[in-house]
Amino acid sequence: MSILVVGSVAFDSVKTPFGERERILGGSATYFSVAASFFTDVRVVAVVGEDFGPDQDAVFLDRNVDITDLERVPGRSFFWSGEYGFDLNVAKTRDTQLNVFADFKPKLSDKARETPYLFLGNIQPQLQVEVREQVGAKLVAADTMNYWIDNTPDDLSEMLRRIDLLVINDAEARAIAREANLVRAARKILSMGPKRLVIKRGEYGVTMFTEHSYFATPAYPLEEVFDPTGAGDSFAGGFMGYLAATNASDEAAFRRAIIYGSVMASFNVEEFGCERMRRLTYDEINARFRELRSFSNFEEAQMPPF
Amino acid sequence: MSILVVGSVAFDSVKTPFGERERILGGSATYFSVAASFFTDVRVVAVVGEDFGPDQDAVFLDRNVDITDLERVPGRSFFWSGEYGFDLNVAKTRDTQLNVFADFKPKLSDKARETPYLFLGNIQPQLQVEVREQVGAKLVAADTMNYWIDNTPDDLSEMLRRIDLLVINDAEARAIAREANLVRAARKILSMGPKRLVIKRGEYGVTMFTEHSYFATPAYPLEEVFDPTGAGDSFAGGFMGYLAATNASDEAAFRRAIIYGSVMASFNVEEFGCERMRRLTYDEINARFRELRSFSNFEEAQMPPF
Repeated sequence: MSILVVGSVAFDSVKTPFGERERILGGSATYFSVAASFFTDVRVVAVVGEDFGPDQDAVFLDRNVDITDLERVPGRSFFWSGEYGFDLNVAKTRDTQLNVFADFKPKLSDKARETPYLFLGNIQPQLQVEVREQVGAKLVAADTMNYWIDNTPDDLSEMLRRIDLLVINDAEARAIAREANLVRAARKILSMGPKRLVIKRGEYGVTMFTEHSYFATPAYPLEEVFDPTGAGDSFAGGFMGYLAATNASDEAAFRRAIIYGSVMASFNVEEFGCERMRRLTYDEINARFRELRSFSNFEEAQMPPF
Repeated sequence: MSILVVGSVAFDSVKTPFGERERILGGSATYFSVAASFFTDVRVVAVVGEDFGPDQDAVFLDRNVDITDLERVPGRSFFWSGEYGFDLNVAKTRDTQLNVFADFKPKLSDKARETPYLFLGNIQPQLQVEVREQVGAKLVAADTMNYWIDNTPDDLSEMLRRIDLLVINDAEARAIAREANLVRAARKILSMGPKRLVIKRGEYGVTMFTEHSYFATPAYPLEEVFDPTGAGDSFAGGFMGYLAATNASDEAAFRRAIIYGSVMASFNVEEFGCERMRRLTYDEINARFRELRSFSNFEEAQMPPF
């Protein structure tokens, strides 16, 4: 099955303790679609400006991502500039220029409306709802961020009521639920709409909640995190990509999807932008999947002589 | 096989957002030995003052912990007073009175010297070394804390060279290695002596490193953490208790031991002091072991049609 992703396509200038890049291709829809493209067909709905050219097209086209619904308008593309210190968990934003993204009204082709898997990247909750209403998808997942949680809580609640699955980080989960304990926060969010909640915890891995199940897995242990930008979106791309490719919806499939998402994120942060994902192979993906499995595997207890 | 633990036995006054207790029995050796007692025979080496009476004896004796090597001297026992805010990860110390603990010189009986499993609780590294030299144990594990890492680094290095296994939290691991990345920090610590490193990460679970293996498991997801005091020591007690009870030393046994440690810690934080562990049953322990297993279990990948 194929995936439709709506989100941002942007130019990022990123500085980390390990180096610097000017105006590399970024944005939630970019990271998501490149990661998901390893698993299934992906179609992107986003907006870019006149500074988006053949080099940027190539990032998508080389991965067979369908960009016919990528709108091109006069002006400049969304631009973000940020810096990470040695604590790579927090980005310091140096500059944000919404540019053509400020007036983004997602336009969906007929083909886009028929896509069975939909991922609503982190954009205004109101736009997420508008897109969601136009797509008769089998599975709808969404991301969001603290800005929308704080500033458009009603729109966010509306969005939450209309999705199947929410993929956020732990700070966002605590903020949405106004609850410090993550288990209680998860329970509250599940009462707000989504039937399944995936919480990204950076170097601590990922947890997944439903009303009746809990799953937790460690992150792939990396000695070098080069550039954390896009980790969450490449996770979501691998996660949704696996689900769409297998079209399975049992708990076991969701768990394996979490592992594939973790694998894609772990590769993505090894280099700037999409650089690492652009030359990734299936052998590498599957090898890391097996490694992650071995890291959390333990046999049935051989009970001590109580 | 039996375990010898050397550490502190103390009175704690603890305040959390959920309540308050004055002068309840605490200390690393207390939490460790009560947790380990569910798995095997435990002998405690520690010092207490005249304020330690039959009610305190009972905490150990009810669990068949051997306290014949518990030294009783004139004066008052070690006293700690602390407070936790809603972020239960960090304790604010209100008062510390070393009392009889200030002059603690562990005295080991002949039986103590023959104990095959030794846990060096968090005391001066120099004392840990002295005890270690007197015990011909099969497996020696130790804990430490930032105070010793900062103030007695040479003694700490000496201690690390003489143990098999170190059990610390992630802040301590980063401090010992002077390295922010946990994987690199672990690699460095393993080069300093211990062949195996267990890192406690609170609500994020536990990771274990050897030169050639990595294991990570989530914490048991609790909706209410009532009093985090003793979480690390009850973890270590369950961990060492399982190892000693089974006398196994393969990777799989260490992994199961991590899970039993996590189970004991998860119960311990549900109430003040040792209250929850004192009425814990084997059925409860094994049920939670199975739950933790289910939380991190995922099947072999059913590969998508790449």
